Amino acid sequence: MVGSARSEQETPDFDVSARVVMAQAEILGSISEEEGRLTRRFATPAMKQANDLVAGWMRDAGMSVSRDHIGNVIGRYAGLPSEAGDGQNAASHPILLLGSHLDTVRDAGKYDGPLGVLVAIACVQRLNEVGQRLPFDIEVAAFADEEGLRYHTAYLGSKAYIGALEPGCLDLVDADGISMEDAIIEFGGDPSQLSTGRSETEELLGYCEVHIEQGPVLEREGLPVGVVSAIAGQTRIMVRFVGEAGHAGTVPMEMRRDALCAAAEFVLITEGLAREEAGLVATVGQLEVMPGASNVIPGEVVLSLDVRHQDDATREDACRLLKEEAARIRSARHVSMEWQVMQETRSVHCSPVFTEELAMAVQMAGHPVRYLASGAGHDAVVLSQVAPVAMLFVRCKGGVSHNPAESVAVEDVAVAIEVLGRFLERLVRGSHGEQGE
Amino acid sequence: MVGSARSEQETPDFDVSARVVMAQAEILGSISEEEGRLTRRFATPAMKQANDLVAGWMRDAGMSVSRDHIGNVIGRYAGLPSEAGDGQNAASHPILLLGSHLDTVRDAGKYDGPLGVLVAIACVQRLNEVGQRLPFDIEVAAFADEEGLRYHTAYLGSKAYIGALEPGCLDLVDADGISMEDAIIEFGGDPSQLSTGRSETEELLGYCEVHIEQGPVLEREGLPVGVVSAIAGQTRIMVRFVGEAGHAGTVPMEMRRDALCAAAEFVLITEGLAREEAGLVATVGQLEVMPGASNVIPGEVVLSLDVRHQDDATREDACRLLKEEAARIRSARHVSMEWQVMQETRSVHCSPVFTEELAMAVQMAGHPVRYLASGAGHDAVVLSQVAPVAMLFVRCKGGVSHNPAESVAVEDVAVAIEVLGRFLERLVRGSHGEQGE
Repeated sequence: MVGSARSEQETPDFDVSARVVMAQAEILGSISEEEGRLTRRFATPAMKQANDLVAGWMRDAGMSVSRDHIGNVIGRYAGLPSEAGDGQNAASHPILLLGSHLDTVRDAGKYDGPLGVLVAIACVQRLNEVGQRLPFDIEVAAFADEEGLRYHTAYLGSKAYIGALEPGCLDLVDADGISMEDAIIEFGGDPSQLSTGRSETEELLGYCEVHIEQGPVLEREGLPVGVVSAIAGQTRIMVRFVGEAGHAGTVPMEMRRDALCAAAEFVLITEGLAREEAGLVATVGQLEVMPGASNVIPGEVVLSLDVRHQDDATREDACRLLKEEAARIRSARHVSMEWQVMQETRSVHCSPVFTEELAMAVQMAGHPVRYLASGAGHDAVVLSQVAPVAMLFVRCKGGVSHNPAESVAVEDVAVAIEVLGRFLERLVRGSHGEQGE
Repeated sequence: MVGSARSEQETPDFDVSARVVMAQAEILGSISEEEGRLTRRFATPAMKQANDLVAGWMRDAGMSVSRDHIGNVIGRYAGLPSEAGDGQNAASHPILLLGSHLDTVRDAGKYDGPLGVLVAIACVQRLNEVGQRLPFDIEVAAFADEEGLRYHTAYLGSKAYIGALEPGCLDLVDADGISMEDAIIEFGGDPSQLSTGRSETEELLGYCEVHIEQGPVLEREGLPVGVVSAIAGQTRIMVRFVGEAGHAGTVPMEMRRDALCAAAEFVLITEGLAREEAGLVATVGQLEVMPGASNVIPGEVVLSLDVRHQDDATREDACRLLKEEAARIRSARHVSMEWQVMQETRSVHCSPVFTEELAMAVQMAGHPVRYLASGAGHDAVVLSQVAPVAMLFVRCKGGVSHNPAESVAVEDVAVAIEVLGRFLERLVRGSHGEQGE
């Protein structure tokens, strides 16, 4: 159908919508605080510019646009006029929330965040073009902060949206000494109004977020999209081994208490354990050797351990086993060992009902359903506190994210638009069905 | 005999000599470039002060003292007057060289270097006190640079002594931008005279150096001294593993190419190999992980490998095996691997004849003979190019060196003085024996 003439009422080809999304992602990708690379932190002029653009695209798609106090841009596509024909009752439609975030990491790619906002706008645009209204309102949220680069936080946007922002966060200070409170005021918000969040009189049906996979599974399996079953829980641990430094030439092997050998054993045990347990990932990403001279036996090693699984018990078991292994290494190698849990986040399970609808939508679009857990956190983690959530992953090239090399194919974006559209259709049928009961 | 009155002719108790050495080491240990810690680099005012003190102690021990152009202090204890009674012939005595170095590493201990100089002076002092002259001259060298802290060199003092200084070294520049040439001039030397070295008309019988062990073997075995069989050869290698960085939450274990896991495997294989081969030491002392974030799979690791053994073939075999293992890891883990030999030093075998005499001297002093290889380099490496060398190791506490905690016991120093004295006696008998042939 590409290139064919179409009537006013005809829905455009998904490829056309996808090309628009790709062009918009390109434009957003050029809006940065830094010359030559994409960095768009919370409440910066670059973010303001991105917000304004997205607000314009929302309006073009038939949405009314508002901004909350944290700086989220919220587009609203009104549902069917109430059957009673009473203008007052129109506001009582429940709301389905779509979207993602507009902030980025430093030296970011163009799709982590914006893709979810733009695909959602594209779906609304398609409804609007044929004048279709649904039995619920659609809100598209462009959250102002998910990565947390500026204040070393996470999910500021979605937390403010549900009124769950931590009270102390306003006092946080960025690298330039600007408090979050001042940044919010400068950005046009009223910090005193932050705790309110969205109107509680409006029912939130659920939240569905489209996001790049940030991993290589879909690419490996040749699939354009995947359905997220859960967002993995995560434990971050600091492990320290202290042995004894010594002269690399004069201390015989059998008299050494080499902290790096102890750490190396731990690294390999960690890898082996994670390989044996389906869905478990465990990573030693940092490892520092002291004193760190080529002719000195390492006396001390500090390493980071990151363990994730969609099932909290599996993750906790893995951490317990690894701690036991670290203790065994301590005893066997006569070193000391310190084990400090730095952070622990429980997993979030996506709504079974919504996720099933999303899976059916994938099938309707002609693709096999691949369920997968998200190893990274997303705004859906926050929204799950107040509503059912579902997530659709889009294949990304090489599984690369948080990197300028981040890349998605226009064909896959077309699939995502189709799937999200069919998901909306299914919800409409579902809500009709409920109404019919 | 301690505390007993003694006649002019009576040799003092070894403990008395040892206490003098300990007191002298204490004094030298206080002569530093830095407040609060011992750092004495080549050709500095601190080194000048140490040289002057040592020159004074040499003179007190009956030696004539000279200084060469690099800044070595050389004491000469003349041998027996020639039997012909001819003053001209007195200069034709062969020379036995004793000594060690006076420079230190940064934040050094008091014994690495100075102990060998002071024990040698103590032995000469004991000969001088009883008026004993030997059939050879004794030179005691206090070398001006062995550690090479200032110019990142090694053995400047002993190399200059034998006239083997590399021509280019004068252009080296220290951290303050001062060239070695200027430093030598400032220190009172004439750089143009450096290449000459010691007089070639004088026969050098050999070199015997007393040094702290810098390792824990003697302490573990309860021995005051050990006889060095060889100074180990050394290979320094840089190994780089490059895999693929990725998100620690989203890349499944089976799809990872984790450079740190590859490196950890290599570290443990290195340890295992060295443990299996007697006398082999292999150390990964530096290991850098990139990008080094707790939530990023390591994409690249660079590590240092230090391999030493007294037998060059054993060391070379070990390096070849480790390179094969690194290549095997490369293939198995689909990473790339770079192997770069940074430095390779052949082992130096001590003179069998001299070492046997030293071992007999240890036995005569009432101690079991323990032969051991030196894993660290010493001035004897350089002297071995022109003469037979022997080395006596003195037990040091915990095997610690290059550290303010460096410690030797006065009782062990007494043993070292006795052993070196008996070694001289044995050489005298040997040279008589030769004369008698």
